[in-house]
Amino acid sequence: MSSTSSQPKVALVIGAGDSTGGAIAKRFAKEGFIACVTRRSADKLQPLVDSIRAEGGQAFGYASDARKEEDVAALFEQIEAEHGPIEVLVFNIGANVPCSILDETARKYFKIWEMACLSGFLNAQQAARRMVKRERGTILFTGATAALRGASHFAAFAGAKHALRALAQSMARELGPKNIHVAHVVVDGAIDTDFIRTSFPERYALKDQDGILNPEHIAENYWYLHNQPRDAWTFELDLRPYMERW
Amino acid sequence: MSSTSSQPKVALVIGAGDSTGGAIAKRFAKEGFIACVTRRSADKLQPLVDSIRAEGGQAFGYASDARKEEDVAALFEQIEAEHGPIEVLVFNIGANVPCSILDETARKYFKIWEMACLSGFLNAQQAARRMVKRERGTILFTGATAALRGASHFAAFAGAKHALRALAQSMARELGPKNIHVAHVVVDGAIDTDFIRTSFPERYALKDQDGILNPEHIAENYWYLHNQPRDAWTFELDLRPYMERW
Amino acid sequence: MSSTSSQPKVALVIGAGDSTGGAIAKRFAKEGFIACVTRRSADKLQPLVDSIRAEGGQAFGYASDARKEEDVAALFEQIEAEHGPIEVLVFNIGANVPCSILDETARKYFKIWEMACLSGFLNAQQAARRMVKRERGTILFTGATAALRGASHFAAFAGAKHALRALAQSMARELGPKNIHVAHVVVDGAIDTDFIRTSFPERYALKDQDGILNPEHIAENYWYLHNQPRDAWTFELDLRPYMERW
Amino acid sequence: MSSTSSQPKVALVIGAGDSTGGAIAKRFAKEGFIACVTRRSADKLQPLVDSIRAEGGQAFGYASDARKEEDVAALFEQIEAEHGPIEVLVFNIGANVPCSILDETARKYFKIWEMACLSGFLNAQQAARRMVKRERGTILFTGATAALRGASHFAAFAGAKHALRALAQSMARELGPKNIHVAHVVVDGAIDTDFIRTSFPERYALKDQDGILNPEHIAENYWYLHNQPRDAWTFELDLRPYMERW
Repeated sequence: MSSTSSQPKVALVIGAGDSTGGAIAKRFAKEGFIACVTRRSADKLQPLVDSIRAEGGQAFGYASDARKEEDVAALFEQIEAEHGPIEVLVFNIGANVPCSILDETARKYFKIWEMACLSGFLNAQQAARRMVKRERGTILFTGATAALRGASHFAAFAGAKHALRALAQSMARELGPKNIHVAHVVVDGAIDTDFIRTSFPERYALKDQDGILNPEHIAENYWYLHNQPRDAWTFELDLRPYMERW
Repeated sequence: MSSTSSQPKVALVIGAGDSTGGAIAKRFAKEGFIACVTRRSADKLQPLVDSIRAEGGQAFGYASDARKEEDVAALFEQIEAEHGPIEVLVFNIGANVPCSILDETARKYFKIWEMACLSGFLNAQQAARRMVKRERGTILFTGATAALRGASHFAAFAGAKHALRALAQSMARELGPKNIHVAHVVVDGAIDTDFIRTSFPERYALKDQDGILNPEHIAENYWYLHNQPRDAWTFELDLRPYMERW
Repeated sequence: MSSTSSQPKVALVIGAGDSTGGAIAKRFAKEGFIACVTRRSADKLQPLVDSIRAEGGQAFGYASDARKEEDVAALFEQIEAEHGPIEVLVFNIGANVPCSILDETARKYFKIWEMACLSGFLNAQQAARRMVKRERGTILFTGATAALRGASHFAAFAGAKHALRALAQSMARELGPKNIHVAHVVVDGAIDTDFIRTSFPERYALKDQDGILNPEHIAENYWYLHNQPRDAWTFELDLRPYMERW
Repeated sequence: MSSTSSQPKVALVIGAGDSTGGAIAKRFAKEGFIACVTRRSADKLQPLVDSIRAEGGQAFGYASDARKEEDVAALFEQIEAEHGPIEVLVFNIGANVPCSILDETARKYFKIWEMACLSGFLNAQQAARRMVKRERGTILFTGATAALRGASHFAAFAGAKHALRALAQSMARELGPKNIHVAHVVVDGAIDTDFIRTSFPERYALKDQDGILNPEHIAENYWYLHNQPRDAWTFELDLRPYMERW
């Protein structure tokens, strides 16, 4: 849904700590959106904010604990007061920490869900309440293959991602008719990040052959989804390198 | 997996508060299992325990808060000390409370997950740790249609049930090769319960035409799954009345 | 659905050429069903028929080209005239022949569909027409993992199996309310057959550890599905060895 | 995958008889592709060809029976000889003809599969063989909700669409690593066509509220899929009006 209005439009990216969230924020900023980006500690956001501004875009960083209801409510309040209506919400927090079911701690099982799912609920709900009143808006969730099937040693992450997808699908079905576009992007493959570079060097070496996902290319899909006309909305699409086994 | 050993075998049903859990406990008790049944307050379990004993079976009720790690660990400890190895674990706690995504509270969203999913993790993990050492055992989860797709007003319940299914599938994939049979039963339809009788009388009226699920018939499938030989294990089956729309 | 009537009941197994079809026929014969079994040439059925009769069961072999509408219609006509109403139909023809999409011939692509899917349509329709009039009956399809996802070199087989599952699901949804139980069994793993023994000896060696499916154990599930009370019918269940990777 | 080469590029749309196929052809023609369009009789293609040319694009119509292997092989031969390498193949033939399973004829069941699935195999294989040699190309299939689940009265159509999706998925898995992008678009909802206008006037009336899919908007997604960089390819996306129940 593109708008011709001259009103400032805000794209809020929850979890802009990794390269994907950052790339999404840049993509929307490039189109004139005010990019509001969050992670737990604000200082780490400064490079991203600086980089967007250096390219002539508008960006603001917010420290926000996405798992705390009051924090989240205050964040939305503040952003809309300072910058205008949130047109796009991107929820991009993951928590992929594998562990045998025999060794997983209850605390970690909860933490993974809290981070990767409850946060999604809290932020998406805040967005939904505002967007429903305005009868417009887009809510985009970053998913993973683990959203579609469980796997050995992935009970916690798969559980959180399954639940997040159920949230997205339930919201899409409830809010679609209210003109809110809710979509879920299944990222299936390694992303070009520091984490992959340092932890999985063999995998990272596939970068030369386009064997790992470029965050900017992922981000393009979020921009695309936001711009779909409402007679032809996508709820879900998957993304993977051409050479990925699946 | 049937055993000819004369050792007492325990079937533990977490969430024997509703008719399904009770019927499952009865079914295993009828086959000589010591049925251990739990719900939050023990006194409500007495009728079930009495009924199993009246039919010559062995049954024991335990108050257990399935959401508390220490409680759950103590429960397993106590049951195995008192009655012997838990051969079968059935996790049967649901929490189907619909609500618009706009009105859902964070507290309820969490509570539904805690009850319907975290409890499953805590109990299944305790069972798995013991069963893996003994290289035998069955873990059965009660699922629902909401485990397979989200729906308007069902974000919380669908999320919990999706996550529980991801847990079951991840456990099945990790523990199958260790000779632990993990399965997930998708109940798709109204069950013959007081809740349906009083809240959905029109639905309940279909009982005369077998239009709602008989808990004993559901229970039969749990017994069946437990007895499958290990060269042909089922991970998932669905159950619904013949006349159900799906 | 079990019947107490003294009327002879017929179980018809289309594709009793392999060990699974044969085991299913034996299972129903053991319960007093008249087992009618088909494959393209009748003489190969004789050992199966003899074996069922040797155990005191009733069995009759029919040569039938399951892909020819007139043959199929005549088969149903003849069986019901000779032996009574067909209570159970099992469609058990597969055609797992892998090939690169680049090399697959149109003829083989068609043949695989014709054998594994069109045959299923023709036979299931004949059964459905008769069962709907009698308001009772069970139709069971043998599926495979390829019914759920495509794979490199499996376009033809996966296509046929996907289409067969769509047939089963469409029939279940249309005929369930007419008291016809339609179900689909997803066999995921190697079965104990001559084919596996000679072609995949390493795989076959897992038999000692229960690593391949015993046809009798598969057959038990068909019998079980047939006997489910109609308030709790299963449409689909999967079967795989405990040690199978999936 | 975008190309900077000045060589003419061909987009071939099989089944450009309806508005979707036509809109896809126009979309690619607008970007400089030579749009080759087919349907069974060429004369009906003239308006589409004229319309593309009127806008300055290149278009050529071909009568082709997509179900005949020789016709299809000849078509590809001719187009590549006349216009250059086929860069994009779009398979867009459907055959949505509902019928009770009791009344469906074998002939129609076959015809629907032949038209909606076998044709897809024949054309996609011709494209794949050429594209694999050139190590580049895109193959796009138009799917439907019926590709994902069966429904009462839709055994034939759902079967064909399931099989087509299995073909697409199998091809994607085999050909992705060879740099051929294969994708499947699930159209879920009524499209703005003469058929819907005349047969489902109430549905068509939703057009004013964007309640039916605009073919141009569908086409945009094909163009988008073709242009995805190969480190982030989509296999499947769904499209439906915001107000659609699903």
